[in-house]
Amino acid sequence: MGEVVENPDSIHVDFTKYDIKRRIDIKQVFQNCLRSCILILNQDICMTKDVFIKLWKNNQICVCADGGANRLYEFFQDEDDRKTYLPTYIVGDMDSLRNEVREYYRGQNVLIIEQKCQYSNDFMKSIKVISDHFASPTVPKLLETNINHVVSGLKASNNNTSHDQGKNDIAPVKLVVLNAIYGRFDHTIQSVAELYRLQNQLPHFSTYYLTPKDLLFLLPAGGTSLTFTEGERDHLFGNCGLLPLAGPCTIVKTEGLKWDVANWRTGILEGQLSTSNRFVGDNGCYINSDCSIVVNIELKWEVVEKDAFFEK
Amino acid sequence: MGEVVENPDSIHVDFTKYDIKRRIDIKQVFQNCLRSCILILNQDICMTKDVFIKLWKNNQICVCADGGANRLYEFFQDEDDRKTYLPTYIVGDMDSLRNEVREYYRGQNVLIIEQKCQYSNDFMKSIKVISDHFASPTVPKLLETNINHVVSGLKASNNNTSHDQGKNDIAPVKLVVLNAIYGRFDHTIQSVAELYRLQNQLPHFSTYYLTPKDLLFLLPAGGTSLTFTEGERDHLFGNCGLLPLAGPCTIVKTEGLKWDVANWRTGILEGQLSTSNRFVGDNGCYINSDCSIVVNIELKWEVVEKDAFFEK
Repeated sequence: MGEVVENPDSIHVDFTKYDIKRRIDIKQVFQNCLRSCILILNQDICMTKDVFIKLWKNNQICVCADGGANRLYEFFQDEDDRKTYLPTYIVGDMDSLRNEVREYYRGQNVLIIEQKCQYSNDFMKSIKVISDHFASPTVPKLLETNINHVVSGLKASNNNTSHDQGKNDIAPVKLVVLNAIYGRFDHTIQSVAELYRLQNQLPHFSTYYLTPKDLLFLLPAGGTSLTFTEGERDHLFGNCGLLPLAGPCTIVKTEGLKWDVANWRTGILEGQLSTSNRFVGDNGCYINSDCSIVVNIELKWEVVEKDAFFEK
Repeated sequence: MGEVVENPDSIHVDFTKYDIKRRIDIKQVFQNCLRSCILILNQDICMTKDVFIKLWKNNQICVCADGGANRLYEFFQDEDDRKTYLPTYIVGDMDSLRNEVREYYRGQNVLIIEQKCQYSNDFMKSIKVISDHFASPTVPKLLETNINHVVSGLKASNNNTSHDQGKNDIAPVKLVVLNAIYGRFDHTIQSVAELYRLQNQLPHFSTYYLTPKDLLFLLPAGGTSLTFTEGERDHLFGNCGLLPLAGPCTIVKTEGLKWDVANWRTGILEGQLSTSNRFVGDNGCYINSDCSIVVNIELKWEVVEKDAFFEK
């Protein structure tokens, strides 16, 4: 069964005790980063305009997956805003993109990359274009020469070898995805599977899902330090969960949670999950699991908005 | 890898070929049933008043899990409605129940069962009370003798043996849960785990989650027939998914899906999932998996509302 310890509401985590394989400063999800992308999937954009624009400005490119472009278009009421916040690419089989939206963005010279392949969804097709974009700066330029800015079945993006290129391209890419969760439930689970696929196939990607309630990401197996300040812990984060969604696993050790565990078996079938937990570390939290697990952290969006959270 | 077959948009399923362990007529989720309960968890109730009232009338009792009572209270604007649709029980540790709501329902003689145990959540505590209610009709009567209708740490409900009573109590119970999905993501996954726990511990429960987008339930291992009419298929259902959330498994055989599979390995880590699928059987769908899997079916709520879907 392993060990569960209930901690006081504030403790200090001594990270030097641990073999840390990966460090995640949660604030960096929101901060400016050179090789970074916002990906908008086809659900309502549930954040304030203020937060959205700050997020936009802190990411280098924006990709809309098919009908995600409708959501970006509808998010802005006024034409000036709409014209200011243009996606870099619209990618997908275009079965959801409304004609009016397609014509609008085409008129603004947005690159629309139509991909009909049945064996990957619009989310995966978008990832492929993002990966190509960051792997080879010439790809977008090549595309720009195409008539009407509509590229059908883009060769470079159908090329299976470019995932391998991705593996050799070690410069990290930050990917912030909106609307991956909270749609139809099979979409939600497909998005969870995409976290695992990305970790495996594009390990230089750091992928984060922002939802109306929380921040989700996949912790790889081994020791990870999540770092944050006492203020962030107290004002920005609510509850959190460690979610073994690919099958049962063992959480070897945590330090910095209200309910820390050691050698603790966790799984959905086993009915043993660390949910409704929260951070108590004043400098962060250490988590070591023998398999990759999904972490969700409740975000107090009204504080994210007010805070200088987007500034370095 | 197994076999995947793309079917025409309408086929007839010959169920007589198969060994059927369980039959689910999807319409019955919404229809009148004697031993049945609506359980409301603490999220916004996202359905029209019309649908909610039809659903209410077709279920025998209603339980609110803690702050779920706030949502029921807020759902109705007018006092007549509020007084008409009173929950049978409010159950939980009551850390979310607003005072105004508690006083209102107490004034209406609603039974408020306060349970402080840390090792189960409000959802599980509510299930315990529902199970006790259907296992022994005297339990609610006993509770009614309690002063102020507030029962602290209800003994019968803390009694572990009553789950075993549940196993012997073979008369089926239908449980329709609102707001289990689409809250904080750790809550969503806790709800998924609860589907597996219920199947194991209270196999006489048929549990269904209704979300703003879809219907979710757990298919047990072995052959199941899902039955529906051609009209229901065409007008009420959208896409569907077969989701192996407790770890990888093999779907032995399906018949009646747009993309049917045979001996098909599926898992989140494997990145192989049957999502964005749909029904093409004109009389239903056969699904046989070697482990329990979650099924989601997109519901066209605007049609559910208009249709005589709630009538037998």
